[in-house]
Amino acid sequence: MCATSRALREHGYADLTMQDIADESELSKAALHYHYDSKRELLVAFLEFVSEQFLAAVREAERGADGPDERLAAVLDTAVAPPAPSDLAGLRTALLELRAQAPYVAAYRERSRESDAELRDIVAGIVADGVAAGDFRADADPEAVARLTVTILAGGLLRGVSVGAERERTRTLLARAVEDRLRPREVA
Amino acid sequence: MCATSRALREHGYADLTMQDIADESELSKAALHYHYDSKRELLVAFLEFVSEQFLAAVREAERGADGPDERLAAVLDTAVAPPAPSDLAGLRTALLELRAQAPYVAAYRERSRESDAELRDIVAGIVADGVAAGDFRADADPEAVARLTVTILAGGLLRGVSVGAERERTRTLLARAVEDRLRPREVA
Repeated sequence: MCATSRALREHGYADLTMQDIADESELSKAALHYHYDSKRELLVAFLEFVSEQFLAAVREAERGADGPDERLAAVLDTAVAPPAPSDLAGLRTALLELRAQAPYVAAYRERSRESDAELRDIVAGIVADGVAAGDFRADADPEAVARLTVTILAGGLLRGVSVGAERERTRTLLARAVEDRLRPREVA
Repeated sequence: MCATSRALREHGYADLTMQDIADESELSKAALHYHYDSKRELLVAFLEFVSEQFLAAVREAERGADGPDERLAAVLDTAVAPPAPSDLAGLRTALLELRAQAPYVAAYRERSRESDAELRDIVAGIVADGVAAGDFRADADPEAVARLTVTILAGGLLRGVSVGAERERTRTLLARAVEDRLRPREVA
């Protein structure tokens, strides 16, 4: 998986070959093929690996925080900029390319859907807890806030890759949009 | 451009050949090459064409509306679901693939940046007008609302392609997020 990550960073998704991945690992191309029938099969495993690392980092950040406010901040921070080794900085382009292939490859679509749904569950759970505890607006809709969050994260990823939008701006924008939903605000 | 659009819908970006495009047009492959040196050059022209059609549709929708409220609603409606012939429904995947290649192809990056900046200008202009007219909150930040808008649109595109998110949901989510920024709201 680490060799695949390095090969993807270096070659990108479209030009990647099994040989590139073998070159980054201590395995021969034949040994790679023993484990994975095709580049596609290996990349499905890689997408799953990266998603699991990402979600594990998000959950760990949440566990380290107290109360709905802190938990939500920790989750959003981590989702925008995951820590090493699940740091996706060099992988954002490759991940976007994989997701863009989702209409053609059922396994990419399934992995993308699972990961999207799981992140939404985490966010919705925190929002529901915050509403129950009276920390957030009573009429805040956990599912809607979760969908807003994953949409802004996806937009930040796409704009980061295609127009060079900065992560820090995505984080600020996401925090404000979520805040608008969770806090009462005085009439201007 | 129409032949390219049809060929993209049918074959996708990764597998597209000049022959596929020629097959959809009334030109031979040689004639296509007379106008465009490479598939990449043709696709740069295509990305530019689609961006122009999209922005023209957005501007026309804005012109047909009165006042900041209506103008903003018309722009957001059109940006989420552009009318024919700039209907991007069948092209969303191909457009996403092109944008995902932006780090590798300077011309894709430039077109993506121009189009992103122009849409932001349109939205920011309407918000500024609405603030000046007293229709929106006095402290609404036109640039921030514009950035939020293009980020949610990008997220809707990526989630539409990768996890099958519905346009209607993106529209609702976008309207509410923008509304949160522009309207005073009572304390819960």
